[in-house]
Amino acid sequence: MARVFSSFALLTLAFSVAMASDHSPLQDLCVADMNSQVFVNGFTCKNPSSVQANDFYFSGLHMMANTSNALGFGVKPVSVTQLSGLNTLGISMARIDYAPWGINPPHTHPRASEILTVLEGSLEVGFVTSNPENRHISKVLNKGDVFVFPVNLVHYQRNVGNSNAVAIVGLSSQNSGVNPIANVVFGSKPDISTDILVKAFQTSDDVISSIRSKF
Amino acid sequence: MARVFSSFALLTLAFSVAMASDHSPLQDLCVADMNSQVFVNGFTCKNPSSVQANDFYFSGLHMMANTSNALGFGVKPVSVTQLSGLNTLGISMARIDYAPWGINPPHTHPRASEILTVLEGSLEVGFVTSNPENRHISKVLNKGDVFVFPVNLVHYQRNVGNSNAVAIVGLSSQNSGVNPIANVVFGSKPDISTDILVKAFQTSDDVISSIRSKF
Amino acid sequence: MARVFSSFALLTLAFSVAMASDHSPLQDLCVADMNSQVFVNGFTCKNPSSVQANDFYFSGLHMMANTSNALGFGVKPVSVTQLSGLNTLGISMARIDYAPWGINPPHTHPRASEILTVLEGSLEVGFVTSNPENRHISKVLNKGDVFVFPVNLVHYQRNVGNSNAVAIVGLSSQNSGVNPIANVVFGSKPDISTDILVKAFQTSDDVISSIRSKF
Amino acid sequence: MARVFSSFALLTLAFSVAMASDHSPLQDLCVADMNSQVFVNGFTCKNPSSVQANDFYFSGLHMMANTSNALGFGVKPVSVTQLSGLNTLGISMARIDYAPWGINPPHTHPRASEILTVLEGSLEVGFVTSNPENRHISKVLNKGDVFVFPVNLVHYQRNVGNSNAVAIVGLSSQNSGVNPIANVVFGSKPDISTDILVKAFQTSDDVISSIRSKF
Amino acid sequence: MARVFSSFALLTLAFSVAMASDHSPLQDLCVADMNSQVFVNGFTCKNPSSVQANDFYFSGLHMMANTSNALGFGVKPVSVTQLSGLNTLGISMARIDYAPWGINPPHTHPRASEILTVLEGSLEVGFVTSNPENRHISKVLNKGDVFVFPVNLVHYQRNVGNSNAVAIVGLSSQNSGVNPIANVVFGSKPDISTDILVKAFQTSDDVISSIRSKF
Amino acid sequence: MARVFSSFALLTLAFSVAMASDHSPLQDLCVADMNSQVFVNGFTCKNPSSVQANDFYFSGLHMMANTSNALGFGVKPVSVTQLSGLNTLGISMARIDYAPWGINPPHTHPRASEILTVLEGSLEVGFVTSNPENRHISKVLNKGDVFVFPVNLVHYQRNVGNSNAVAIVGLSSQNSGVNPIANVVFGSKPDISTDILVKAFQTSDDVISSIRSKF
Repeated sequence: MARVFSSFALLTLAFSVAMASDHSPLQDLCVADMNSQVFVNGFTCKNPSSVQANDFYFSGLHMMANTSNALGFGVKPVSVTQLSGLNTLGISMARIDYAPWGINPPHTHPRASEILTVLEGSLEVGFVTSNPENRHISKVLNKGDVFVFPVNLVHYQRNVGNSNAVAIVGLSSQNSGVNPIANVVFGSKPDISTDILVKAFQTSDDVISSIRSKF
Repeated sequence: MARVFSSFALLTLAFSVAMASDHSPLQDLCVADMNSQVFVNGFTCKNPSSVQANDFYFSGLHMMANTSNALGFGVKPVSVTQLSGLNTLGISMARIDYAPWGINPPHTHPRASEILTVLEGSLEVGFVTSNPENRHISKVLNKGDVFVFPVNLVHYQRNVGNSNAVAIVGLSSQNSGVNPIANVVFGSKPDISTDILVKAFQTSDDVISSIRSKF
Repeated sequence: MARVFSSFALLTLAFSVAMASDHSPLQDLCVADMNSQVFVNGFTCKNPSSVQANDFYFSGLHMMANTSNALGFGVKPVSVTQLSGLNTLGISMARIDYAPWGINPPHTHPRASEILTVLEGSLEVGFVTSNPENRHISKVLNKGDVFVFPVNLVHYQRNVGNSNAVAIVGLSSQNSGVNPIANVVFGSKPDISTDILVKAFQTSDDVISSIRSKF
Repeated sequence: MARVFSSFALLTLAFSVAMASDHSPLQDLCVADMNSQVFVNGFTCKNPSSVQANDFYFSGLHMMANTSNALGFGVKPVSVTQLSGLNTLGISMARIDYAPWGINPPHTHPRASEILTVLEGSLEVGFVTSNPENRHISKVLNKGDVFVFPVNLVHYQRNVGNSNAVAIVGLSSQNSGVNPIANVVFGSKPDISTDILVKAFQTSDDVISSIRSKF
Repeated sequence: MARVFSSFALLTLAFSVAMASDHSPLQDLCVADMNSQVFVNGFTCKNPSSVQANDFYFSGLHMMANTSNALGFGVKPVSVTQLSGLNTLGISMARIDYAPWGINPPHTHPRASEILTVLEGSLEVGFVTSNPENRHISKVLNKGDVFVFPVNLVHYQRNVGNSNAVAIVGLSSQNSGVNPIANVVFGSKPDISTDILVKAFQTSDDVISSIRSKF
Repeated sequence: MARVFSSFALLTLAFSVAMASDHSPLQDLCVADMNSQVFVNGFTCKNPSSVQANDFYFSGLHMMANTSNALGFGVKPVSVTQLSGLNTLGISMARIDYAPWGINPPHTHPRASEILTVLEGSLEVGFVTSNPENRHISKVLNKGDVFVFPVNLVHYQRNVGNSNAVAIVGLSSQNSGVNPIANVVFGSKPDISTDILVKAFQTSDDVISSIRSKF
């Protein structure tokens, strides 16, 4: 399933190269310098005299993301890694594609609330509130509908139609991050101890091993 | 021209009725209570026990905004006034429609950076940095392109094609606000003294009076 | 398993009664008024003239939390619900008890980083970074050791000894919230569609139903 | 000495009547409603439709503050209590007058950095950094000079001339607060135990009692 | 008119050389290192061991700014560029001089609210709220009066007397920035397309060209 | 008395070597790079690829701090200097030991609220509100009790028993700082002028000189 999140992968790998700066800008321009060897909170800035219009530009959201995977969905993020002008600005965007009955599985964004609008198709969407209520708030959305997922709560989308669906989302961070529950818990490197997961999910070693083998 | 910004008008008028709460949430749910008589920074919250899925939902972004006005553009905002679940979450969205060669005139958002993607058509977009450089950074965008306008800088869009254009934007505030330069300066109620505008724009009384008559 | 998180339940239910105010105080005293009918971000404040020393006080962290449950752990939170003087101050505390081999299962705090110190026993602790790396960073802690879990990342603790273990934690929020993965995903009310969970965890209807029956 | 800080007293007493709202505004206008019975972080807002120009206005900084006291100085604050339009805006101002050789004694502002300019006379100013360095950074200022005191560090001013001195200061909070060290430690109500102060200042009961009698 | 804002020019040009750091300090001292080649949000800090009293000091606010220009006003800013100790502190100051009937033309500060006091003379001051209300709130101020301009709203001052006027202002940012409307819209480099301005101001090509020639 | 605060000294001296980054993280990992020559607000980050579990780990809170000094107390801080993984996370911890009748003298933390729990013994604790009320709020705490000290207010603790006492505290900053009043005012380097302290404390030169000789 690693392929499913491949566009996010680019984003995160970039953070292995360079990091720096804040979401409350203290000057007009602080375009991320992706080649800097100085890592900061966010990104250091390019020399303002070398800033170009292209630093605020990204191309390709009209193209469908690849949905040929087990979940039937794909994401094209436009975060600070793809669009360096977003540094310090506290906003990003993404396109999400869903094959028929494809799902964007339960996940959290550790640094962003998300507002979503449906461009094509119908989506079942929902989020769950914190313990102990764990209230599940959900809705079926059609073309032109908008829904918001509060910061850090577990949420998901599912295409509830026989044709492709497409959504555009806004995120309240230059680098929202994404934590699909199953990948984090069953696909971590190295593994979380089987004993912990057996108890956490109140199930057997076999079930844990079986699920883990898929991630 | 008041009609052009009529959808924003709903937003702002609502603030005449009720205001309250912050963009860094201190609990899972703080849906704006639009009927409260207690005004706060943002909005007070509905009783959490009465929160419904519809509080996080808005419908209608698939419908074109009215562009039959002098500027040839229209906006459908999805801010906290239209979608009360956005309260405390620091994000909102809007659809912008442009008639052929229509413009979204130079304006600022006093509380948000903006990320824009083109769904249909071609747009010339740009922003200007602060004094004394006043550097104008601009770009022509096509379908699927993305551009970001840093918080509080003057920016604009123009449809540079003979067919309609459509954009979706994300904004880093639940209530970005909008200040079209011409409306604010020439359409304020009451007027700013003619003498001030004559000096500010280095022009004549006649020119100021003529422009003011349009707002 | 609901009992395991029962002390957190008190916390969250209280939010059904009253909510309000920010983590950057604008005056010396803003003690939460737990009886207010006005809900805000955080809590409204008691009249300062009625503030007492007891508003800043809580008793009972020397008493062990109940660990007689399937997971073998218990939590005594000291958040704004238990200690109303924490309102607007961005800090809280908790005591965690672990039966031999008991676990605090994988969970997130949607509004806080956590710093933990071991008072008694030995704990295996860990957290997992975001997609796509999902790096698992873990350590065995002994008495007097300290570890930090970054905000919103999935983390856990396990007692790796045959006697009880005890920890004290500090949290960077007056109301951190807690989202145990299994409770949120398998114990939400109402259920998340089985089809979504089958795909998300790449398993069968039977496994999902079996796990769900425990929550 | 209570009289010396009498203008600040008005400010704080007002907080016994009404409190509410944040320093990052979420709408254009959130003028403090000083008559509200709802206390929040900062102040609740007046109904925007009743806002007037006078809400953003204060008069009297051309008048000297009373310096006929043991310290020889007086303050005229313009904080949110005096100027309700400052609510949510994160800024305030004050005029400080100094009799010849008068002092503004060592104090902290718990919620603001301070920038000071000398209108008349000469001032010795300084601040001390935190433990363990406790570096004392000081300077003599003349007319037109500017100095900044970092947030929460102990600082002071002294008139080093034989005529009156006057300063204007800007503060990075709508309600900076003021904690003159001697008043807080020796003039608290009720007293801090003598034993604590004897040890803290490494002196005798007599000295503590003598100093305390002045506050 | 470039000369009018020349003191601000120094400020902004400096940002072409070095940028970095936040407005919520994480240590006692973070004086801006104006010679750093590492650009960050705000400024990087000097080595604390080399910090001197002069880093917190600026001289010259007793001297009148040059008002011999078309607008009849001049500004002496004391922002982080002039006073490097302001870095991370969220405050700055300025002196503004006005020739008889001189104006500080309609402008915004993209990163600050402003509090102003009149030292000499009489000023007409005002600001305009956001669309669609565009309410103009104004007042005539005399010596010792104070007024506040909320963050990011268009505001102005005019000397309404036959002698010079002087004001001191506090700003809630280390680097407020300034966007005089006319300079930004008509003086950008390169120009904003004439067609856009013709439509925005509902006027003719000739008027736009004429105004633009002055900037 | 310098020895009393010696563990804090390590913390602050480290800031003479390297500084950088914010308390609202913009990525998963920003471990402080204590060897960096680039000083920022907080600390620059280590290359994420070199981050290890030990970066989030500290050992030794089970060991008593040295209380053999004039005040009879000692502190073991776990701030960003001791635990580099705390960088950008807005939280830290400390252990405080008290000899019989030992005191932690009146002090402020310029960047943190503090929550304290008593592990052993009985403590008298208190804080004082700002001018002019200077209300002293105090309480005697026993084992398992919790108390909170609001950010930047003067507070203290005293062991009110004949055996040792121990407390664990959480602090809402990665680097809270500590300003013991007596050390700052009487132990600054260089001295604050005697004349200022004589007037501030309304006492004699002899008393000031005598107290100063102890610091």
